[in-house]
Amino acid sequence: MDASGDPAGTRRYFLEELQIGQRFTSGTHALDVEQVKAFASQFDPQRYHLDEEAAATTLFGGLVASGWHTASVTMRLLAEGGAPLGDGLIGAGVEVAWPRPTRPCDILHVVSEVMEIRPSRSRPDRGMVTLRCETRNQQDEVVQVMTARLVVPRRT
Amino acid sequence: MDASGDPAGTRRYFLEELQIGQRFTSGTHALDVEQVKAFASQFDPQRYHLDEEAAATTLFGGLVASGWHTASVTMRLLAEGGAPLGDGLIGAGVEVAWPRPTRPCDILHVVSEVMEIRPSRSRPDRGMVTLRCETRNQQDEVVQVMTARLVVPRRT
Repeated sequence: MDASGDPAGTRRYFLEELQIGQRFTSGTHALDVEQVKAFASQFDPQRYHLDEEAAATTLFGGLVASGWHTASVTMRLLAEGGAPLGDGLIGAGVEVAWPRPTRPCDILHVVSEVMEIRPSRSRPDRGMVTLRCETRNQQDEVVQVMTARLVVPRRT
Repeated sequence: MDASGDPAGTRRYFLEELQIGQRFTSGTHALDVEQVKAFASQFDPQRYHLDEEAAATTLFGGLVASGWHTASVTMRLLAEGGAPLGDGLIGAGVEVAWPRPTRPCDILHVVSEVMEIRPSRSRPDRGMVTLRCETRNQQDEVVQVMTARLVVPRRT
């Protein structure tokens, strides 16, 4: 996987260099209560994400991060090297599921796997890659599963 | 639709009060370059979202908002009354597609439609509602289509 001779961590994979089953692991991001409330104040102002006492009486039993916050942190981890595809990450569409809540104390990382590689028929310089990205907490529990369809160019 | 006698805009719909085809329209949110770059700096630090000159040379031809920014603004519009379901919005999972980019000058609103209502067999106090949410710009062009599976409680 390092045939390019690039220093570790800077190697990026273009369409013709990807393989089904290939995996990538991101760095980590530590959440905290301030981040959870700041995101929620701006984008998801619901009691589950803003108010410990009110959240305790909901089905979550306490404060949880907005699913969109989990998704956004996942994007950051992917963009920072967690998914070194092409010269950037361009998503055509995604499916996202949140099998368990993200808590303010969670430290997240993303494990991604190449599921499908489909060269474009009309645009020979690119293709569509399906990447399954599991966002996991410090106990390796999956808090988000995202399946993304990404536009990836050929290097040549 | 206003049989509850609630003042306009405060009426919320519980599982037994929803109908297939029922539609909701959110308020609006005006983006700007500062918001686009602030979100991208924190969550999606790619040139398409951060640097006008570099973005001009990409397939977008100029600065565009992160898809996750569009999704997060959509969430805010839904939470602020665009999808007045139950006593809050709890998503089990979503599909999101971005058929066209969101630009920094866009003014967004969300038009939602109830696609499916499925009472839970095991939990008679709730059900799963599928809501299709189109995020549109000031030209009524669709920049995001989100199909969300939401947990909605019964009122009774």
